[in-house]
Amino acid sequence: MTRASASLSPPPGIPASLRWEGTSLAVLDQTALPHEISYRACDSLEAVRDAIVRMQVRGAPAIGIAAAWGLVLGMQQQAALPPDAWLAELDRGARRLASARPTAVNLAWAMNRMTIALRPLRTADTQAAIARLTDEAAAIEAEDRAICAAIGEHGMAVIPEGARVLTHCNAGALAVSAWGTALAPIYRMAALGRAVSVFADETRPVLQGARLTAWELQQAGIDVTLITDSMAAHLMARGEIDLVLVGTDRITANGDVVNKIGTLGVAVLARHFGIPFWVACPSSTWDPDTACGADVEIEERSAQEVTHLGGVPVAAPGVKVRNPAFDVTPAALVTGVITERGIARQPLASTLGTLLQPTRITAAR
Amino acid sequence: MTRASASLSPPPGIPASLRWEGTSLAVLDQTALPHEISYRACDSLEAVRDAIVRMQVRGAPAIGIAAAWGLVLGMQQQAALPPDAWLAELDRGARRLASARPTAVNLAWAMNRMTIALRPLRTADTQAAIARLTDEAAAIEAEDRAICAAIGEHGMAVIPEGARVLTHCNAGALAVSAWGTALAPIYRMAALGRAVSVFADETRPVLQGARLTAWELQQAGIDVTLITDSMAAHLMARGEIDLVLVGTDRITANGDVVNKIGTLGVAVLARHFGIPFWVACPSSTWDPDTACGADVEIEERSAQEVTHLGGVPVAAPGVKVRNPAFDVTPAALVTGVITERGIARQPLASTLGTLLQPTRITAAR
Repeated sequence: MTRASASLSPPPGIPASLRWEGTSLAVLDQTALPHEISYRACDSLEAVRDAIVRMQVRGAPAIGIAAAWGLVLGMQQQAALPPDAWLAELDRGARRLASARPTAVNLAWAMNRMTIALRPLRTADTQAAIARLTDEAAAIEAEDRAICAAIGEHGMAVIPEGARVLTHCNAGALAVSAWGTALAPIYRMAALGRAVSVFADETRPVLQGARLTAWELQQAGIDVTLITDSMAAHLMARGEIDLVLVGTDRITANGDVVNKIGTLGVAVLARHFGIPFWVACPSSTWDPDTACGADVEIEERSAQEVTHLGGVPVAAPGVKVRNPAFDVTPAALVTGVITERGIARQPLASTLGTLLQPTRITAAR
Repeated sequence: MTRASASLSPPPGIPASLRWEGTSLAVLDQTALPHEISYRACDSLEAVRDAIVRMQVRGAPAIGIAAAWGLVLGMQQQAALPPDAWLAELDRGARRLASARPTAVNLAWAMNRMTIALRPLRTADTQAAIARLTDEAAAIEAEDRAICAAIGEHGMAVIPEGARVLTHCNAGALAVSAWGTALAPIYRMAALGRAVSVFADETRPVLQGARLTAWELQQAGIDVTLITDSMAAHLMARGEIDLVLVGTDRITANGDVVNKIGTLGVAVLARHFGIPFWVACPSSTWDPDTACGADVEIEERSAQEVTHLGGVPVAAPGVKVRNPAFDVTPAALVTGVITERGIARQPLASTLGTLLQPTRITAAR
């Protein structure tokens, strides 16, 4: 069903984050990693949405792909509805999936793309429409693989041989269909035998760095060192980090980068210590309809993510907690953005527009 | 035995970090907080040293006090030795305790002070010497209480009414004999009915912020919000933090501040966002014999502190880890240092010398 070639599969040793199985979506439960590799069989739109909310699948591109398959599942199950009711259900389902996590733009982008794909087909033939949706979800997934490969190629240009790269959160194979965004150039360099090593911020509260990034790099045989988020400044001050490379959940029109909480801190540190700060993402992460980061809704998640770890309480019972899941890195702190179409450097507001505008879907959400 | 008045006791609801019991030292096991309040009865020099190494007692002033009592215990148990052998044992014991944790200067300071106290008494009367050591340890502890109270008074001058204060690690009642260093002005303001609130960084890897600072402020009825270390930048960017106030384990001659890992990152952020960055400490934390932070040995602790939490693994098995316990904040990033003698502002190298030089013990280590 996918158009991906073998060379676009996940790096050896790393399980696929998603597997479409015709009438269900197998979701690698990333909350159980690295201790257990298990797939949740999602057999409905709501099951896929729940897996996104629980962060069993996470990573901006991966949740876009998962939502696309979730919409296919939902519409398969509504196939008996009359065409008008079916189309109304399509819009409702797309909105429902898009609301699972408000910050990443890829969810909304994928839902837009799926509903737009049906426009030439808004007829009485529901089965044809379901086939079209299925093709579109497969295309989104296949394109994501090709996009990651292209980001890997472009990204290598900014990573010197032997570089020690700091990354935050997980923008690796597990965050996408294969290879990753920020980690794609690392995997590509390793495949070419070029020296590169990675420091992985553990990324509290959910520990995507410790549980996912360190693990997937280790599985792929890449030199990786795990640190707590609080250690990045110390290593930069001692000259042990050459560049920062992260993914993103949304880039606004002015070039502001919305990404996992803690990214802003790393960007400020990189600027202070004179270290390049690179962002890698597919063009679908660009959101020119939102003027700047201040306009983006920042998801607040449950206090328990901060007060507990693996079910174990690590703080005083009942203590007040803040838990914003994302922060905004101002465009001015970003060295450049690596996309599948090439690299956008400063000034980002105009270079992103030039690089990415032609392919953007312009339909209203 | 102590000269402390009732008003210098720990804030209500917070157990004392140390309790001298004549022939043993009761050490509040801070690794078990906040889930369990239990004291370890240390009945020998080695037991006290072990409690320091395991961080059952931590905080620069508290480990200095604990080591002083540890030396008393050790020398009580050597009372039967001939005077020359007893004195040799004193020097050996002081070095042994001072080596328990290399970064904080208070350990070395307390051992210096204890051995210097015996100089007028270097006679055959071992019992008199033990009594003198006991008095000196009690004096160090009593002075620490008075010092915390004085830091509280001076510190209030730099904290506006209603301020939202970010702190890192624990420089509170649990880190000292009572009241704390960085938290002393907070407790004092609360006692006077002045509005103040605190954001506590959780302080990975050992979570002193989550387990100790948030808990002790909560116990004392002070408005405290727990965040992960990675959230400070986000809150600063949104104007939700008015000033930073931390303790320190050592200030070098040039004003560099050696403190818990993560402090440097907070200081860089504070500078970037135009927020004052204050450091509070007793004068014993000043180390004019060390030129700058680069000359200070940074303790590296076990990988397990990073890969596990409360015994639960949170990272891939066998992953490579860095775990520096401290970092160095350059003097230039420090707004000023609050001590029991008053406040040293920039340029720190000269103001610290003027403020603290007269009382410094100048004996060789």
